[in-house]
Amino acid sequence: MGKLLIVGTIAFDAIETPFGKTDKILGGAATFIGLAASQFDVQSAVVSVVGDDFPEEYMDIFANLNIDTSAVERVKGGKTFFWSGKYHNDLNSRDTLSTELNVLADFNPVVPEAFRNADVVMLGNLHPNIQLSVLDQMTKRPQLLVLDTMNFWMDNSWDELIQVLKRIDVITINDEEARQLTGEYSLVRAASKIQTMGPKYVVIKKGEHGALLFHDESVFFAPALPLEEVFDPTGAGDTFAGGFVGYLAETKNTSFNSLRNAVIHGSNLASFCVEKFGTERMLEINKAEVDRRLRQFKELTQFDIELL
Amino acid sequence: MGKLLIVGTIAFDAIETPFGKTDKILGGAATFIGLAASQFDVQSAVVSVVGDDFPEEYMDIFANLNIDTSAVERVKGGKTFFWSGKYHNDLNSRDTLSTELNVLADFNPVVPEAFRNADVVMLGNLHPNIQLSVLDQMTKRPQLLVLDTMNFWMDNSWDELIQVLKRIDVITINDEEARQLTGEYSLVRAASKIQTMGPKYVVIKKGEHGALLFHDESVFFAPALPLEEVFDPTGAGDTFAGGFVGYLAETKNTSFNSLRNAVIHGSNLASFCVEKFGTERMLEINKAEVDRRLRQFKELTQFDIELL
Repeated sequence: MGKLLIVGTIAFDAIETPFGKTDKILGGAATFIGLAASQFDVQSAVVSVVGDDFPEEYMDIFANLNIDTSAVERVKGGKTFFWSGKYHNDLNSRDTLSTELNVLADFNPVVPEAFRNADVVMLGNLHPNIQLSVLDQMTKRPQLLVLDTMNFWMDNSWDELIQVLKRIDVITINDEEARQLTGEYSLVRAASKIQTMGPKYVVIKKGEHGALLFHDESVFFAPALPLEEVFDPTGAGDTFAGGFVGYLAETKNTSFNSLRNAVIHGSNLASFCVEKFGTERMLEINKAEVDRRLRQFKELTQFDIELL
Repeated sequence: MGKLLIVGTIAFDAIETPFGKTDKILGGAATFIGLAASQFDVQSAVVSVVGDDFPEEYMDIFANLNIDTSAVERVKGGKTFFWSGKYHNDLNSRDTLSTELNVLADFNPVVPEAFRNADVVMLGNLHPNIQLSVLDQMTKRPQLLVLDTMNFWMDNSWDELIQVLKRIDVITINDEEARQLTGEYSLVRAASKIQTMGPKYVVIKKGEHGALLFHDESVFFAPALPLEEVFDPTGAGDTFAGGFVGYLAETKNTSFNSLRNAVIHGSNLASFCVEKFGTERMLEINKAEVDRRLRQFKELTQFDIELL
């Protein structure tokens, strides 16, 4: 069992899909990453910030899953980060209706003493300067540093993002962002260019079309599980990342083969996330269900062509 | 070694992609299917029609690959079917610039005597009435009947297409066409509805996003091989179908497991097809190259998560 440090947002989300809409519900990158990683045998902590409007019952969710929240700062008189968005009919694209940074605007992350020697660090999507600050607080080079980011930081904090890229091992990014980061349309070329910018491993997330893991000349692919219905894609990318780092922190094996398995675990957990609004589905799944679906992933992808 | 009967167009294509454009070159569904199937140990024949503008050197291509063309009608004074199209920059969509049916307009297919007991029949994309006529000429129920079709026939020959669907075992169709055929957005639901229309197996082609094989409650997925560059997608779907039926005709094994392997072989061959204009790449590949890429497919998809 390894130590996993998760940095990212804890948020209120208000979501509208073709199937319905929610009031403010629990969301945020660190939340989805933490919930997914809690499916593994890991010791994890979240570094984040909330306002004093953030309900105790939401904090209890983390506590009940043995996720250390001592480094989740609670700002007196502050309001929790809020995002609201509306998905289009195909659920592949969405409009952001509102983004209120609130307490996130002045966030200074403090890594808890006990996690400064974490084995795996997951830098969830946040300002690159916050990600850099976390890296600077580590007393030991973690076995694996994983970064998630998005187009917003490419548009607004390019130089800082490039600094983070130089220091990490794995980047998870979606297809459009990989193209924006490199100016290459071909994902093979984009991944190869990103590897020259720092990370040895590049994970390109393609939503319902699965995820690719690139390393040197090798590629591994995990499909998304074909589902009858995708209800709400919010958090799927972070859930994927949480499953990915959760597995790696549990095994403390960061070989390429282990990363391949980690991509499958990430895709597996993401397939649950999209079945209900927000974190709802992730809060009810159990080990038996997760294993059953892993078996479906095997059936979905394994074949027996004999090669000499 | 089984007998494979291929019905489909032989055509002139004029193609424009972001990388260049061609004059009239060899194309057509039956052509791509035949070339791909010739990678397997099969006895195959093509039923099709050309005009007397069709060059002998193109006919020789089939002969050199041991593809029986005795049932390729040559219409005196007729012109060969012609298609021209221009791909958009992302190569995922295209505009048809011109479609000249020519000799295809009055085509009456005649199945050669020696192939009326074929083991596998591949009905390439053509008017459903031509496909029905071929089925009626078979003296023995083939082990496997595979159909490819497109949105054009859904728009213009719905009733005839429904008749063909009732009589076949496998349909290969792209994602948008599966949605149009069923009115279901979810591909899982679409595939399940198509199975009630006749075919026991449904293959949904998603281009660069791979292909899904549905059967009862089971799903299998073959990714497209991630390539540095896709040069010309023309014929990729037919090449996929050719690899699929070629493998099944060689093995004469039509179990679900065998169909899974066939989907991989189809994806593998399609990955070559898109690397050059038209049939160019398919005419130069050899067994060693094909096997090497099959190995890449294994590395791309196989993982070793142990499940109890």
